[in-house]
Amino acid sequence: MSTVHVIGAAGFTGAQLAALVDAHPYFSLGQVTARADAGKRIVDVAPEYRVDAVMQEFDPDGVAAGDLAAVCYPHAEAAVAVGELVDRGVRVVDVSADHRLRDAALYPEWYGFHHPRPDVLADAVYGLPEINRDAIAGARVVANPGCYPTASLLALLPVKDDVSDIVIDAKSGVSGAGKTPTPDVHYSSVADSVRAYKVLAHRHTPEIAQELGAAVTFTPHLVPVDRGLLASCYAGFGGGAPHPDDLRQRYFDFYAHAPFVEVVEQPPGMHAVQHTNYAQVCPAVDQESGRLIAFGVIDNIMKGAAGQAVQNLNLMAGRPEDEGLR
Amino acid sequence: MSTVHVIGAAGFTGAQLAALVDAHPYFSLGQVTARADAGKRIVDVAPEYRVDAVMQEFDPDGVAAGDLAAVCYPHAEAAVAVGELVDRGVRVVDVSADHRLRDAALYPEWYGFHHPRPDVLADAVYGLPEINRDAIAGARVVANPGCYPTASLLALLPVKDDVSDIVIDAKSGVSGAGKTPTPDVHYSSVADSVRAYKVLAHRHTPEIAQELGAAVTFTPHLVPVDRGLLASCYAGFGGGAPHPDDLRQRYFDFYAHAPFVEVVEQPPGMHAVQHTNYAQVCPAVDQESGRLIAFGVIDNIMKGAAGQAVQNLNLMAGRPEDEGLR
Amino acid sequence: MSTVHVIGAAGFTGAQLAALVDAHPYFSLGQVTARADAGKRIVDVAPEYRVDAVMQEFDPDGVAAGDLAAVCYPHAEAAVAVGELVDRGVRVVDVSADHRLRDAALYPEWYGFHHPRPDVLADAVYGLPEINRDAIAGARVVANPGCYPTASLLALLPVKDDVSDIVIDAKSGVSGAGKTPTPDVHYSSVADSVRAYKVLAHRHTPEIAQELGAAVTFTPHLVPVDRGLLASCYAGFGGGAPHPDDLRQRYFDFYAHAPFVEVVEQPPGMHAVQHTNYAQVCPAVDQESGRLIAFGVIDNIMKGAAGQAVQNLNLMAGRPEDEGLR
Amino acid sequence: MSTVHVIGAAGFTGAQLAALVDAHPYFSLGQVTARADAGKRIVDVAPEYRVDAVMQEFDPDGVAAGDLAAVCYPHAEAAVAVGELVDRGVRVVDVSADHRLRDAALYPEWYGFHHPRPDVLADAVYGLPEINRDAIAGARVVANPGCYPTASLLALLPVKDDVSDIVIDAKSGVSGAGKTPTPDVHYSSVADSVRAYKVLAHRHTPEIAQELGAAVTFTPHLVPVDRGLLASCYAGFGGGAPHPDDLRQRYFDFYAHAPFVEVVEQPPGMHAVQHTNYAQVCPAVDQESGRLIAFGVIDNIMKGAAGQAVQNLNLMAGRPEDEGLR
Repeated sequence: MSTVHVIGAAGFTGAQLAALVDAHPYFSLGQVTARADAGKRIVDVAPEYRVDAVMQEFDPDGVAAGDLAAVCYPHAEAAVAVGELVDRGVRVVDVSADHRLRDAALYPEWYGFHHPRPDVLADAVYGLPEINRDAIAGARVVANPGCYPTASLLALLPVKDDVSDIVIDAKSGVSGAGKTPTPDVHYSSVADSVRAYKVLAHRHTPEIAQELGAAVTFTPHLVPVDRGLLASCYAGFGGGAPHPDDLRQRYFDFYAHAPFVEVVEQPPGMHAVQHTNYAQVCPAVDQESGRLIAFGVIDNIMKGAAGQAVQNLNLMAGRPEDEGLR
Repeated sequence: MSTVHVIGAAGFTGAQLAALVDAHPYFSLGQVTARADAGKRIVDVAPEYRVDAVMQEFDPDGVAAGDLAAVCYPHAEAAVAVGELVDRGVRVVDVSADHRLRDAALYPEWYGFHHPRPDVLADAVYGLPEINRDAIAGARVVANPGCYPTASLLALLPVKDDVSDIVIDAKSGVSGAGKTPTPDVHYSSVADSVRAYKVLAHRHTPEIAQELGAAVTFTPHLVPVDRGLLASCYAGFGGGAPHPDDLRQRYFDFYAHAPFVEVVEQPPGMHAVQHTNYAQVCPAVDQESGRLIAFGVIDNIMKGAAGQAVQNLNLMAGRPEDEGLR
Repeated sequence: MSTVHVIGAAGFTGAQLAALVDAHPYFSLGQVTARADAGKRIVDVAPEYRVDAVMQEFDPDGVAAGDLAAVCYPHAEAAVAVGELVDRGVRVVDVSADHRLRDAALYPEWYGFHHPRPDVLADAVYGLPEINRDAIAGARVVANPGCYPTASLLALLPVKDDVSDIVIDAKSGVSGAGKTPTPDVHYSSVADSVRAYKVLAHRHTPEIAQELGAAVTFTPHLVPVDRGLLASCYAGFGGGAPHPDDLRQRYFDFYAHAPFVEVVEQPPGMHAVQHTNYAQVCPAVDQESGRLIAFGVIDNIMKGAAGQAVQNLNLMAGRPEDEGLR
Repeated sequence: MSTVHVIGAAGFTGAQLAALVDAHPYFSLGQVTARADAGKRIVDVAPEYRVDAVMQEFDPDGVAAGDLAAVCYPHAEAAVAVGELVDRGVRVVDVSADHRLRDAALYPEWYGFHHPRPDVLADAVYGLPEINRDAIAGARVVANPGCYPTASLLALLPVKDDVSDIVIDAKSGVSGAGKTPTPDVHYSSVADSVRAYKVLAHRHTPEIAQELGAAVTFTPHLVPVDRGLLASCYAGFGGGAPHPDDLRQRYFDFYAHAPFVEVVEQPPGMHAVQHTNYAQVCPAVDQESGRLIAFGVIDNIMKGAAGQAVQNLNLMAGRPEDEGLR
């Protein structure tokens, strides 16, 4: 058994993560922390998970070398906590954005803070198991990908070297905006509507570009859904469009050993992945324009955050990648 | 033309009310006020109404005797504003709860404040046009009914003298909770669920009881709807259940001159009344138990608040009751 | 291991049931049948469960004495299939309504058919484990309760001998209406509205009355929710209202050994039970009127149908009641 | 006053159209027809409009030269009815797709029928008032645009001569799929999900391409919304991206005389246009890629169908373009 500390368990992602660790056959919950909600039980803030553990303030001295941890703090604060954990020999999945961008200079520009631990950042592995399985297994710090990047990358990675002019039009459920009540997540604002937001300015843009090695036009939309994220991706095949059967085969081959990616024949909706760690991807090709259309859909809290974190923890602990996630 | 001041126009009800006044053939917008949102245009906080008027802080000296006003402030604050307006000869519809309860002693108990102007309270008329049309026409202050009382009373008033053991199980859309973002109105909290709240403790209970002249068990529920309120009402016929046809006829007779109440044959849903000032009511009788089941449905922002306020303003101004409301 | 046949696996309940059986540590899927959808895999009609089994037409000769079965056919048709299975020594959970009413004479009146197998009906046990655990364990045929009765009974049973004048106002998600597309389940009809239906005429009424031993006024409502059912129950305490603490204690005592019933302190919403076999109940008492208000909430497809069927199958097979249901 | 016949008034669009005509100060309802619903009143199929008119079967001989008509039949059937009306001197807005494609050869390919009246088709004017105001005024037959083309074209037309590589990712409410209950519009299928459909195969594709004079990659998505349609459009500026201020000014200039198109500063949601004939458009430019991102949002039943039809009827009758539409 490995001890897993969940640092920041009161939010949507943290509570889901604590529940997954709590039910995991190989992991046991270590520290389960909160700030404003310290003293409450997880079941009080997220009754659906039935986890009785009481959240406490984070105690960096209450961890042991060799432990695992997942950090669900807001950006900038996460980097500090990750540093403290790493210094004590804990291996960490950072669910925040603080170790996703390899270039530390991007943090001031996109996140508004100077990275406090470039040394740790330099060691971090981008935690998309479908492409970095081995590196994750040996990593000290794993940067859990963002929800939009997860869906977008899974849809585009099998052909990334053959496409250009990438447009990603993504639709996210409201839980992706977090638990803090704001005018934007008021039921009366969200229900019965769809709208784009942070056009040309969303922080997941440089993360997607980094992993694709190409600039992208990325437009997130908020949809009246709780959990679920669909990325509809468009890109040009510079060298001529492949036959649809060949295209599909490339996706099957690329994900042949990925237990959580399903290549499907019809454009996927959100129902088949909600409350699961599965992603569904579906490529198509517009023969007239030679353009790729590829869909990727996930549950933003599971494969887009907490589920993927457990998938990474499994790899780090030498466990089967899907343990505790079926 | 009459000038109508809208005191508190930034919320759901106030903005709707300003829009109704703005489009009204006989009324013109006077002061349109806000507190936190002073300086903004209504169209900035409620784009769907396309009302350009800029909201200002309330200036009690900027009104004239003979003007009309509608006050959409929170309780306790509304009573103060209403008093200032009445003192200057303005006739007021108080959309808040501050003049609904005839017994001033109920305010400390149910609303947590001592009424600052019992003299004004003593003069107030309960503004349900279907029963108080004439008194409203001559009133100095009209207490606009609550949303739950409106739907419940319209469903029960035609038989109120013949029933007892009243249970009201009501379902309200989220806009009834107002515009302030709170955990309870977060999309992820409201969507895909129904729950009761403030059981045995909702402030509309004494208001309903006052108008029915009887105690009631009132249970409000929050439903994943934006605008709409359904009251399902149950009561015993002490003197024996009437024939369904006779029961229905009593409702038709009772509302024969009510332009906004429709007696319908099937249990009404919310779609037929949303964004309108109509109420639909539907009585039925359980012959086995001798129990009445009566439904009342409204748009909580219209007939349950802003629309009914305009209906009252029409009566106060000697205009057709439905002017500007079709 | 026991073989469990799922007769009628293409609907919402049948597919969920097949998925639960498929993942159950002690059960294995036997026949999985469909009529219109015979030849399709379950994953084709309900992708979220990832069950590959191909549905076939029901073959009564393809079962063995000692097998278990769950029948999810429409009423009238279910009774025939249950009879065929019982005749071959299979023990059956009938998920339809065909064995819920002890009085065969009620079937023509409420369901429009004469029961084809009154002999089997006479043997059937009402499958609410919380009150009939032992009888279910030994039963040949278990009548799985309706969704509305499950939520209503769980809310009322602890006090049923002390209350009268029962009113049940229930709110059900749309999946309860089944998978057949009709105008009533069109998204544009359901979304953003609530309405009562089958007032005084819903078929679950005699079932609830039978188990409570008292007439009830039962009013179902359709709400814009997929899965979830809330019963808000009202009843008079003839002998005087109990103290709230005593009332609550009675509920705790009554459900002390029920693994799936949670007595909660706040009026329960649907989120904490969706996609689970849990029910949450919450009693309150209106001291002024001496009236009970009790809430019961379930997932209508799980505790209201498929989950409860597995709970019953567990008992029939001598397994832990909650096996395969956590 | 002009008589307007509404041919096919039982569907979502037809009922809305009949309601608009019924309330119009200059138009009076002529024939109001239905097929399956003949004999019913409009208020029975669409209670929210409170239109009492009884629907009858279409009688081509019950029209007079000089009348106006709007045809809301399914494609192929509409062309026949339009022909009969035109032959009797009635001027028609065809709300169906049957006169939108100038090239008759496209009908077999995209709609599966040979156009029965190429002579009438040859005369038809594409009814987007923002670009064809004068031609519509004098037209015998106006082809009311599709809902997706309306939103997409309004977003792209101001820059159509300067862009290429057009991708349109559109999100439509369910009412766009029509009133017929199908598995795809079942509440349980639509709610809490988003999915693309008819990828590379939607019939509005050639219509958009025709009006833009360029091929497009068009991907429609179904979202859990009743009424509303958002088109997120992407295109490359071949000649270099304009300054955002210049781009915005081009949109303002282009729509300077369009009473229903609002150029807005923030990406528009659906709430501000629902139940109105307004469209909101919002252009932006990605300076890095030189790519246009332009949003267009409408109510698919109003500006996307019935409202636009009345706008066209106004022009044909020489009335103010916005009469009866505010």
